[in-house]
Amino acid sequence: MNNTYAIGIDIGGTNTDMGLVRNDGKIMARRSIPTTNYTLLEPYIKDIMAEIDGLMKENGVSEIDGIGIGAPNGNFYTGCVDNAPNLPIKGVLDFQKEMHKYMNVPVVLSNDANAAAYGELVYGGAKGMQHFIMFTLGTGVGSGIVVDGKLVHGSTGGAGELGHNILIPEGRQCSCGRKGCLETYTSARGIVQTYCETRAEMGDSNSLAGVADKDVTSKMIGDAANAGDPVALKTYEKTGYLLGIAMANSVTFSAPEAIFLIGGPAKVGEPLLRPLRESFKKHLLNIYEGSVDIRVSQLASNEVAILGAAALIKMKLR
Amino acid sequence: MNNTYAIGIDIGGTNTDMGLVRNDGKIMARRSIPTTNYTLLEPYIKDIMAEIDGLMKENGVSEIDGIGIGAPNGNFYTGCVDNAPNLPIKGVLDFQKEMHKYMNVPVVLSNDANAAAYGELVYGGAKGMQHFIMFTLGTGVGSGIVVDGKLVHGSTGGAGELGHNILIPEGRQCSCGRKGCLETYTSARGIVQTYCETRAEMGDSNSLAGVADKDVTSKMIGDAANAGDPVALKTYEKTGYLLGIAMANSVTFSAPEAIFLIGGPAKVGEPLLRPLRESFKKHLLNIYEGSVDIRVSQLASNEVAILGAAALIKMKLR
Repeated sequence: MNNTYAIGIDIGGTNTDMGLVRNDGKIMARRSIPTTNYTLLEPYIKDIMAEIDGLMKENGVSEIDGIGIGAPNGNFYTGCVDNAPNLPIKGVLDFQKEMHKYMNVPVVLSNDANAAAYGELVYGGAKGMQHFIMFTLGTGVGSGIVVDGKLVHGSTGGAGELGHNILIPEGRQCSCGRKGCLETYTSARGIVQTYCETRAEMGDSNSLAGVADKDVTSKMIGDAANAGDPVALKTYEKTGYLLGIAMANSVTFSAPEAIFLIGGPAKVGEPLLRPLRESFKKHLLNIYEGSVDIRVSQLASNEVAILGAAALIKMKLR
Repeated sequence: MNNTYAIGIDIGGTNTDMGLVRNDGKIMARRSIPTTNYTLLEPYIKDIMAEIDGLMKENGVSEIDGIGIGAPNGNFYTGCVDNAPNLPIKGVLDFQKEMHKYMNVPVVLSNDANAAAYGELVYGGAKGMQHFIMFTLGTGVGSGIVVDGKLVHGSTGGAGELGHNILIPEGRQCSCGRKGCLETYTSARGIVQTYCETRAEMGDSNSLAGVADKDVTSKMIGDAANAGDPVALKTYEKTGYLLGIAMANSVTFSAPEAIFLIGGPAKVGEPLLRPLRESFKKHLLNIYEGSVDIRVSQLASNEVAILGAAALIKMKLR
């Protein structure tokens, strides 16, 4: 089989990362430009396209299958980024149209969690699966849902926002304006809040004793948990308990074969995974017993965004 | 266009209802046999097939597109009913195989809520929709989910059990063995429980004052609410509030165009629908605003089971 290539682009509030991805999932080369340098779409796209041109030339690639983009509020149906709050360029941004001025290839957008799910399907542990759900833990909590081998976009393109499932009615205040969203408990920020609350309850005798609440990070809590800190371990017990309920709930929707987990806060490993699996098992409806399990993503955390974006092109080509 | 016909069968614990359904959704004739008379599959199917034969002959129909069956634990993938707790015939029942001994037509099974959703799509208010969710309120709470114009069955055939989404962690005991399922709050039984709790809180001065807790039915509460009884109205406020959260949560999954509601407890109308719509609006993630609303099913409650079952055949024929 001849090799084919696609471009994957991960648009973040700080940087825009690009990679040339071979059809077997190898990232051949990467480039990055600062998103923060741009307040208008045209010069931003011009510079992205120049980098793509460079990536292709330096690797002797004269043709690509397309450009896949994972972006906050990236809309699969329209090819636009719709009013993303964390981008310096404002409004509805027609990436597809603007890129087509430079190169006549398919341009596909979706949000980063959807892209991660599709990356898992095309290049990762979900290969060949018809039904699975991906949860991405980070600053927020995202999700991507695959049903019948296809990503669920819904009527608006905005499907798969399980981070904003209300898990605790009238619970913690969420940045979305509502209360009790899963994200307020299991994002990096949510885990830090749980840690601070737990330390207030349990007392201060632990390995982060000298660190003020405002300076605690989820990475610190993870390290403390793996060093046996009881407050940190209790924090992950609570986090895993709630995430397990949310994952069990998601099974009642689409009866997936597996639920995948990826992202910074998931890297802590067993301190989170053990209570998560216990809670998932306890809260899974009996008819699904034995049909679904929780798996850690097989994609490298520094590659998933670009691989996922590039994978979106495979969806378009089907 | 020539008329075509299908058979729709609704298998309940008490009765097995059958109808001959014309392709435009008209039920030409119906028959019923008592499910409770049978403890073995073979004689049960024999009698069902005799009734189908009768239905066809009395209507001059010599050919049907197939037989659709809505049954508890009906499995779309296998054509079997899997260990349905409320049927007198036990085990894994291969309806498809047994019926093929009599008639070589497609036989399609699914659970009753999935069938209701498909009935809405083919014959009701969801015609032409690509994405919607149906909630069925009754003894339990069921759901059927349509994504990209197709019913979601999931990897096991058991997708769409939103009645067993855990809405209140560690909440009310559910018959499934877990706690806090949506069903424990918004099924007929759940509404009765909420009424009894509310009456204990608010005092006994209401139109059901003489009725003992154990004798209260959701129909009585509905009538009381429509007569202005404050305890009954408060009951539906609480019910609508929680159902609104559950429905808003379901939108984060598939971003549907509409959410449909059907079933006995929904017949009360505004006392439930007003707080339900308020809660749904309050708890809907902002990105979905204006893209989705709650609708009452357009199918008649005494026809939905048979129409939905017959509609399943249209799915098979696609």
